[in-house]
Amino acid sequence: MKDFIYYAPTQVVFGALSEDKTGKLVKQYGGTKVLVHYGGQSAERSGLLDKICRALEAEGIAYVKLGGVVPNPRLSKVHEGIELCRKEKVDFILAVGGGSVIDSAKAIAFGVPYEGEVWDFYMGRAHAEACLPVATVLTIPAAGSEMSNSTVITNEDGDLKKGYSNNLCRCKFAVMNPERTYTLPNYQTACGVTDIMMHTMERYFSHDDDMTVTDAIAESILRTVKDSVFEVLKEPENYVHRAQIMWAGSLAHNDLTGCGTTGDWATHQLEHELSALFDVAHGAGLAALWGSWARYVYKENVTRFAQFAVNVMGVTNDFKSPEHTALAGIEAMEDFYRAIGMPVSICELIGRQATDEEIKLMTDKCSSGGSATTGNLKVLHRDDMKNIYRMANR
Amino acid sequence: MKDFIYYAPTQVVFGALSEDKTGKLVKQYGGTKVLVHYGGQSAERSGLLDKICRALEAEGIAYVKLGGVVPNPRLSKVHEGIELCRKEKVDFILAVGGGSVIDSAKAIAFGVPYEGEVWDFYMGRAHAEACLPVATVLTIPAAGSEMSNSTVITNEDGDLKKGYSNNLCRCKFAVMNPERTYTLPNYQTACGVTDIMMHTMERYFSHDDDMTVTDAIAESILRTVKDSVFEVLKEPENYVHRAQIMWAGSLAHNDLTGCGTTGDWATHQLEHELSALFDVAHGAGLAALWGSWARYVYKENVTRFAQFAVNVMGVTNDFKSPEHTALAGIEAMEDFYRAIGMPVSICELIGRQATDEEIKLMTDKCSSGGSATTGNLKVLHRDDMKNIYRMANR
Repeated sequence: MKDFIYYAPTQVVFGALSEDKTGKLVKQYGGTKVLVHYGGQSAERSGLLDKICRALEAEGIAYVKLGGVVPNPRLSKVHEGIELCRKEKVDFILAVGGGSVIDSAKAIAFGVPYEGEVWDFYMGRAHAEACLPVATVLTIPAAGSEMSNSTVITNEDGDLKKGYSNNLCRCKFAVMNPERTYTLPNYQTACGVTDIMMHTMERYFSHDDDMTVTDAIAESILRTVKDSVFEVLKEPENYVHRAQIMWAGSLAHNDLTGCGTTGDWATHQLEHELSALFDVAHGAGLAALWGSWARYVYKENVTRFAQFAVNVMGVTNDFKSPEHTALAGIEAMEDFYRAIGMPVSICELIGRQATDEEIKLMTDKCSSGGSATTGNLKVLHRDDMKNIYRMANR
Repeated sequence: MKDFIYYAPTQVVFGALSEDKTGKLVKQYGGTKVLVHYGGQSAERSGLLDKICRALEAEGIAYVKLGGVVPNPRLSKVHEGIELCRKEKVDFILAVGGGSVIDSAKAIAFGVPYEGEVWDFYMGRAHAEACLPVATVLTIPAAGSEMSNSTVITNEDGDLKKGYSNNLCRCKFAVMNPERTYTLPNYQTACGVTDIMMHTMERYFSHDDDMTVTDAIAESILRTVKDSVFEVLKEPENYVHRAQIMWAGSLAHNDLTGCGTTGDWATHQLEHELSALFDVAHGAGLAALWGSWARYVYKENVTRFAQFAVNVMGVTNDFKSPEHTALAGIEAMEDFYRAIGMPVSICELIGRQATDEEIKLMTDKCSSGGSATTGNLKVLHRDDMKNIYRMANR
């Protein structure tokens, strides 16, 4: 068992109509001039943005708005936000949206009090000592950014997608109303569920096999989400199952499922290069790679893959061959991805095979030119990364 | 599903040697003059107290010590602590011990900045607006006070045991080293496990049946603790199983197992009168009452008791009679209590039957003279309370 630190200070306010409390919450956490940060038109169209602005006004809190955050959020938008916040003397950032909007908000929050270039944090060239308070009204359960300490930004100049982790950017509060996820298209719902499950699985596939309570919680989250997704794909306005997915999304990435284990995170790292290069949805990219990663590494801990197969995927235990059980579990997971409309190969993801050049480019970037490794269950070097991209290139 | 707020800001620092970090953690949270609050001799004898004092000195942090907290912690000790803190200008309270010490520390923390009598908070006559920062080095996994927002104090003047809940008293950090629980006597270990399980079960037995992910997490915690207790009763220095119990103890009472459900808490309320009157261990008191409470109320939600029987106690599902399954689960739970050396009746708890007078006294206090109810699964009035005490009075 690994020593661990568990720190999840975000106040979650969960339920129908919870967004009505946004104004009071901002006030409670000391915000007096707010940047309301959001994505495209859906927050405007649904009336959510207006509702939040009225809730702020009711508390006498001033605000400015900045929309236009896109999936795989861009550094240029972050720069725009930093400039606006400085000009308007913003002291609180409210992200209305999903992971992309929250991650963009966190980047702006780091950037405002920092004299240098905010991208330095993402490149590991500097460490943030200050951050404006950030909070969110969540509309897409997926990234888990509402309770996590991380932010992922794409620098268009070189298609670099990089993450930065720092407890200072953990949201002060997260307002979660499952009804706000009713209008998510099925594809986006499925991408979100894939991301939620992967956040749990990245921590689950570990060499630390003795933290039963963490394992059991992780398996509970995986099973719940796996069942609920079919309910909401059939019936998008099913409150209970939307709620299960939404809450599971936060629990999957607030470190609860990693207490006592060493995370792997190779699939995430490999995927970042896919979505940076092809601008695909992160969840879909994860589904396209996971099976290949799993087949490449499962021999490092066959028993754990067998436990996953039995406890999560409901595969019958083949006591004579744990390896057979493990492989059946990987197959069952890919069948699940197919059933919810996710790709299980690069071809299915981008509509063609990646070229040798593209695979070389992704491998180079993922390994920082060959010097960096990724993963923990099996430490992946440059050649391993290339092998996995090739396996997935069907 | 009920709307909920989840707020568990305590930073958990978990692992062997974690107490070495205490000085740095106090500094991080702004403490400059610390009250080190503890119980009896075990913290002194084990060397833990010295170790913590050295860790504080290493960071140049001044401190005063106040020991002598007893189980069912007394208001008189709280008053002594408040006086000492004011005299010494203490600005941070560090509880070294289990739930009693933490609860006493929280009461002192509320009392120091308050001009009136601190007991007012517990009697519902005032609401605390300020609280000194509190943190803990935990040595007994049981009460869950290290991550909860509550404190329970006994006023010797009238044998009144009352709780008070307020987010201000949540611990800033909780240092947890499972090795520090190696020396717990088996009886105390069993009492702790009973308390941990009851914190989960109080939230589990609810009418809100649609929060699968919360149910599954609760059942995971219950099963883990139920298995681990036998391991540590046989082998007190088993790190892994001590760790499971310790971490489960925090998860059981940091509200995670109550997200979306209405807590019941009748068994806790009924037990408070038992331990206030007979000064017995809280965990043992819970075990002595639970079976009687369960048989008295199970018809309010037979299916849930049947689910508990199957998913937690491993009882075979009797599909023709959910009621039979439910009752078999209650019996299995009582068998479990017996197996770990816990009483399942008032006789077994105090060595004799309670007198009619004593039952009347407990009923009067639990119902505040007949005007108050307790419980949610079934709302218990004065007569219900008396009936349950009588059922348990075997």
